[in-house]
Order: sequence, then C-alpha cells, then structure tokens
Amino acid sequence: MSRKKHIVVLGGGFGGLKFCRSIDCEDAKITLVDRQNHHLFQPLLYQVATAGLSMPEIAQPIRHIVVDNENIQVIMDEVVDIRLSEKQVLLGSRTLEYDYLVIALGAVTGYFGNDHWSKYTLGLKSLDEASQIRRQVLLAFEKAENSTSTEECRRLMTIVVIGGGPTGVEMAGALAELTQHVLKEDFRNINPEQTRVVLIEAAPKVLGNFPDPLPQRALESLQKIGVEVRVSSPVKDITEGTVVLANETILAENIIWAAGVRANPLTQKLGVELDRAGRIKVLPDCSLPGHPEVFAVGDITTLTDTKGKVVPGVSPAAMQEGRHVAKLILNEIKSGRAVSPAEREPFKYFDKGSMATIGRSAAVAAVSGFKMTGLFAWLAWLFVHLIFLIGLRNKIAVLLQWSYSYIRYKRGARIITGLNNNAPK
Amino acid sequence: MSRKKHIVVLGGGFGGLKFCRSIDCEDAKITLVDRQNHHLFQPLLYQVATAGLSMPEIAQPIRHIVVDNENIQVIMDEVVDIRLSEKQVLLGSRTLEYDYLVIALGAVTGYFGNDHWSKYTLGLKSLDEASQIRRQVLLAFEKAENSTSTEECRRLMTIVVIGGGPTGVEMAGALAELTQHVLKEDFRNINPEQTRVVLIEAAPKVLGNFPDPLPQRALESLQKIGVEVRVSSPVKDITEGTVVLANETILAENIIWAAGVRANPLTQKLGVELDRAGRIKVLPDCSLPGHPEVFAVGDITTLTDTKGKVVPGVSPAAMQEGRHVAKLILNEIKSGRAVSPAEREPFKYFDKGSMATIGRSAAVAAVSGFKMTGLFAWLAWLFVHLIFLIGLRNKIAVLLQWSYSYIRYKRGARIITGLNNNAPK
Repeated sequence: MSRKKHIVVLGGGFGGLKFCRSIDCEDAKITLVDRQNHHLFQPLLYQVATAGLSMPEIAQPIRHIVVDNENIQVIMDEVVDIRLSEKQVLLGSRTLEYDYLVIALGAVTGYFGNDHWSKYTLGLKSLDEASQIRRQVLLAFEKAENSTSTEECRRLMTIVVIGGGPTGVEMAGALAELTQHVLKEDFRNINPEQTRVVLIEAAPKVLGNFPDPLPQRALESLQKIGVEVRVSSPVKDITEGTVVLANETILAENIIWAAGVRANPLTQKLGVELDRAGRIKVLPDCSLPGHPEVFAVGDITTLTDTKGKVVPGVSPAAMQEGRHVAKLILNEIKSGRAVSPAEREPFKYFDKGSMATIGRSAAVAAVSGFKMTGLFAWLAWLFVHLIFLIGLRNKIAVLLQWSYSYIRYKRGARIITGLNNNAPK
Repeated sequence: MSRKKHIVVLGGGFGGLKFCRSIDCEDAKITLVDRQNHHLFQPLLYQVATAGLSMPEIAQPIRHIVVDNENIQVIMDEVVDIRLSEKQVLLGSRTLEYDYLVIALGAVTGYFGNDHWSKYTLGLKSLDEASQIRRQVLLAFEKAENSTSTEECRRLMTIVVIGGGPTGVEMAGALAELTQHVLKEDFRNINPEQTRVVLIEAAPKVLGNFPDPLPQRALESLQKIGVEVRVSSPVKDITEGTVVLANETILAENIIWAAGVRANPLTQKLGVELDRAGRIKVLPDCSLPGHPEVFAVGDITTLTDTKGKVVPGVSPAAMQEGRHVAKLILNEIKSGRAVSPAEREPFKYFDKGSMATIGRSAAVAAVSGFKMTGLFAWLAWLFVHLIFLIGLRNKIAVLLQWSYSYIRYKRGARIITGLNNNAPK
C-alpha cells in the first residue's frame, strides 16, 4: 500500500475548518495550521466589541473541534512562507511537506492604499481587536465623566464607524444601543444618550449588496435609534481623532474601520496572479493556476463561478468552497488518479442570502428571494447565528446573554481589561 | 442646613463596595474611586486563569453595582497620593477634598523582599494577570506539541505553584484537572496527563490556617489528582524557568506565585505606622491613628480585634470592616457630633469559616466548628461562591459553566488571546 497522502490546511477559519470536517479519509493525513488556538465566529465579533458577549463565547479551541478525527493534527504556529515549487510550507517552528495544500488564511483589514490610517482607527478582525474596541469605547465615557470641558466631552462621546456594509451597520447599531440604553443611567456628569454614532459610507446607500428596499429600511432603522448616517461620503483623510469628509470634519475619540479588507499579505509571496485586494485568482475548481495540488478557499480568493456570479467574501461561500475542495481531493485520493483542473468539477456558489441586524427587534434579511425586515428578520438572524455557532456550550451561553440583554436592556461584558495598570488620562 | 459631608472611598473591592452599599444616607455625598471599571470577584480568579470561566463572568461594572444610589459618584482613576493633613486625595485627573476618607485599596503580590522574582513568576491579582496565566499555560502545551526534545517537553509541561494557602491549593488542583481531564485527548505528540503540577509550601502543611484534619485531607486530595506537593520547602531562589529549593531544582515553563501579598504601596506615603507587609496598623475602630476621619478596611490593614484575634486578609473580613465603618460614619453624620476613636465601637470580626476546593467533588471546609471534606464540602463551596458573586446574570452564567464542566469534563474558556499576533516560539 502506498504512503498516506499528506494534506496541509492553512487557517482554521470557516473555509479551512469546513474542509477538515468534510474530509473523512483513511488514506490521508491532515495537518491544520493556525496562528491562533481557536476558531473565531467572526459574524458575532462586533458583539464582543460592544460588550454584549465575552470572548470565549464566540471562540472554540480548534483542537477541540477536530478532536474526534484522528487523522488531523493541529499545529499552532505562524505561516512564514509557502514554497509552491518545493511543495513546502515554512512555519515558525518547522517546515511541512505536502501532497495537497489548502490555503484558507482569510483576510486582514484593508485601507485601499492608505495604510497609515490604521494608526488612527480600530479594526475588527480578531478577539484582541474586539477587546480593544470595547476597552477604548468604554474608556472614552470614563474620560468624558472626568472631563470638565464640554468640547472635549463631545469629542470623547463621538464614535465614527467607517463602512456601510453589514459589519459597519451592525457595529453602528450595537454602539447606538449601548449608549442609548445600557450606559444611560451609569454616569453623573455626562449623559451617554448624547453620544454621536456616525456611520460613513462612500456609496449612495448602506448595505449596497442587499436587494431593494432593504438598504432603505436599514437606513431608517439606524436613524430611528439615533445613528447619523452619511452616505455618498467617501473619506478624504483620517488623522488622530479626526475624520475628514468632502464637506465636513468630524472629531471623534474612536474611529472604527469597517470599510474594507484585503487578502492575507502572504499571497504576495506566491507568485500567482492576484486581484487589487491581494486575493488569489483561483481556477474554477479553486486550485491555483499551474499548481493543481494547491487550492485556496474563502476570503483569500477571488472567483467568478460558472453562473458568472462573483463569489462574495462571506462565511457560507468559504464553507462551500472548503467542502468542494474536500470532495475533489477525496475523489483523487480514492481513485488514485490525479485529475487536471479543467476536468474537475467547477465550484458553484449557492447563495443562501444575506442578513444584518440593526438593533432590538430590527434587522433586514434577504433569503431565497424573500425579503424580511423588523422583528421577523431579527428572529431569523438570531436563529441562523445560533445554529452556526460551534459548540453546544457556546450556543446556550450566547442565548442566555441575548435573553438577558433583551429583557434587562443590559450587557454582560462591560469590563475594561488590558489597561496595563494605566488609568485613563 | 449644613453642607452635605463628602465621603471619599478609595477602591471598589469587597471592603469599599460593602461600605458603599451599607451607607444609605441623605446627608452625605460619596465618591468611589477605582482604577478599574469593575469589581472583581477574586475568589474565582483562579478559574479564569485555568480556562473554566470567562473574564466578564467574575467581574461587574462598579457603576452598575451602585447605579441605584444617587448619592454615589464613581470615578475611574488612579490614586496618586493621599494628603492626610490637607484632607485631599490626588487622582490622575483631579484632586478630591473629603470630610471622611475610607481607604480600601487592597493588596498586591508580595515577594518577601525578593521583588526581582516577579519577573520570573505569574501573579494572580487581576483579570489581566489571570488572562496571562491562561495564555502562558495553554501556550506551553502548544509549544510542547511542536517540540522535538523530550527534555524541553518536560520543562514546558511542568507548572510550579508557589504557596500552599487557599489560592495555591485551588490553583494547583484546577491545573491538575485541566491537564488530566480537559486537555487529555487534544494533542497528538504529547500526553497532557504527563504534566507535572508541583505545589510548594514553606510551612510543614498546606492550608496551615485550617483546623486539623483538613490540611491532611487537602494534601491527600491534591496527591490523588496528581499534584506533587512539597511541604517544608521554602523557595531559595527563582530565576528564568527555574525554582530552587533546598534539595531540588525544578525546571518549569510556568511558575505561579501564590505565596504572599503586601499592602498597596501607597501606604508608604501615608506617614502612619505599617507592619512588615506594608499594611496600615489601624485603631480598633478601623481609623488611622491621629486621623479620626480616615478609615482603612480590608487587605490594606492589619488589626487585632477585641477578642485578641488577628483579622485575616479575606473578603468576609473586608466586608465586615466596610459595614462597620459605614455604621460609625453614619452615626456621626446623623448625630452631628464627631466622636473620638476611643469612644467608638471597636470592630469585632465574625469568623464565618474557611473553605478551599481542590477539584471535582473535592474540597475542605471549616464552618462554625463543623469540618467538612469531599462532596459535601465541595457543594458548600459552590453554593457560597454563587451566593456571593454579584449579579444575577453572573450567577446563572457561572452555574451554567460549572454544570457544563462537571458533566462534560471540559472547560469553556480555553482560548489564547493577547498574543499580539506572535506565534509561540
């Protein structure tokens, strides 16, 4: 019998993990590499940032998720380089040789060429970044409470969210609720209800990828809970505490960047064709041109599927790609015959729809041609997110938190950590 | 009518908070200062450090706890100096004038004069320190899994806990359970069951303050779950990854210091008499000698009560002192007459007993002359800790976590955060 094939999977996000869970093969050995020890449920990250959930509730140890599959070894390490011609992956601690490689390293915050803006803004791609937003936003109110200057208070109590996609909309909605309801009575010198949450979008509408009339409904829901929405307002410049638009300059202690992502910078070392955001232009089967044994899935790729639709950078797409690639590799291993990319089944994206929540009982959803708004969309949103959250304990814990927040108008994770013993200045 | 008296309370721990919750006075204005925004339930901190609980579950925003008392203003700030002669407290952002002052600033980790040991050990006094222990301990296993040296693995998988008091015993027990049960099946190259947890105590027995035969029972329980206990073993020296005892040198990636505390260093600026651990020698009424309007409560003080018993540095003592001082101040404000310390009612400590948990269904407790061990003591421990944990949401969340851990032999918070994007080396 021939040696077992070795499949290396880079990244334990939605794509990499779905690949690992879809491949149940006696004839392969799988090594899953991630620089974190946990899979992160990114769709709920904004709730950690706004003190609604605690970090462990939306994260699950990767080892634990794949513990039952003895063919899978998990390595927590950084990917330093990928050597396609030698079929090697260089990690911080060792070098892995592979027969098949699945690159699922995802995306990082992208600034459209204005990388210096990262110094003045808060990103939202990891638990540490979410924890930083929570710390900075809560600290701003503490500083405002201690301040004697009205002008200073106004700046401290202004939060700008840049980007009117689902992340920005959900973030702005959650911040407005935090300040309108949760913090309302906690201070003596300031009134958190006077907080300004400003959502900035360059395009003419928020949730531009959603079908009409959902963008308009989302806009109305946001305005109803006090979010100032600026559409058709591209950001001209960002400096320390300042956002410059065409006709307006906004002073804000906290500036949250939810406007864009780009692929993990490692793609630049691969020597394959990338799009403007650094994403790998994969072949229709998700393999890399010239490297039929190497696949890429999820936010690190760009692909127009057989129906001519650009596959969006969302978790269902990553999961579907992960499952697709698992099927292709499994077929090859079982048949013992390498298949050329052109012969392989191309990936077809099944669009399950989109949803975004704005606040209490307010959401918009477009699912299989149905459009929903309000309470019904909100319940659908809750249901879908609970279902896809990994781990029974996390499902129960999150349901408990949401029920508590809904009934009591409170949030359970309003603690400031990571101060390094420095008091606010 | 005269101006309202202004009471400044420094510290939102057990003592300061109990003071604030006991004083319900129309004729006083209270300012509560803490450098954190949350009250921390320290008795469960070791469970955050060992991945059993998440941070928000044992912390509650101070503003939220006192939100219903309109006389109380909360300031999140650092105490820079206390000027007893001017009746002023200097904060980072402003200066407070007081009529009465309650100092409840607690303790910090103490090294008995060997302050350089702090560089090589992990303390357990704040959420950030607990989070650091969780990160370092979990990372050590990740590093061991990636290591090819048996010797290196042994060092990485050795955890030393210094100090055989309740904190050290509970910590060592929880670490043993984590490695024996929780992590057991998660790795491919290492066997976490081979982890060494070594508990070091200078005195001849662990839990030296507990009545016999509880120390012996605790020792047996610890040994049963695999903890190596070294009694009569004072630490000679600690360097990077090394603990030196009289007859033994232990190499360990993680060294946790639970051997001692000393008072908040601010006491050194007060110009009053302190004990060796920097604690304020308060008068029997808890006031400072020569400053009848200034009180100190909790771990920052040392006091022999009227029955000749040294009041221990535990949370019930701090709470009782907080309540006692609230009563004294309230009496003076209501009667409009300053009373000399000698005329005031002295503080009497009511010893509610001690308990420590060692692991699953194993604990020791001494309550009002009753001594309990095993399951019964363990249930009593769970019950008491749930009752005293502040906040209904936290009680429910912690109960859920404990039930889950008990039934599934798992822990819900096994995530590594705060890596700053560095992979383990």
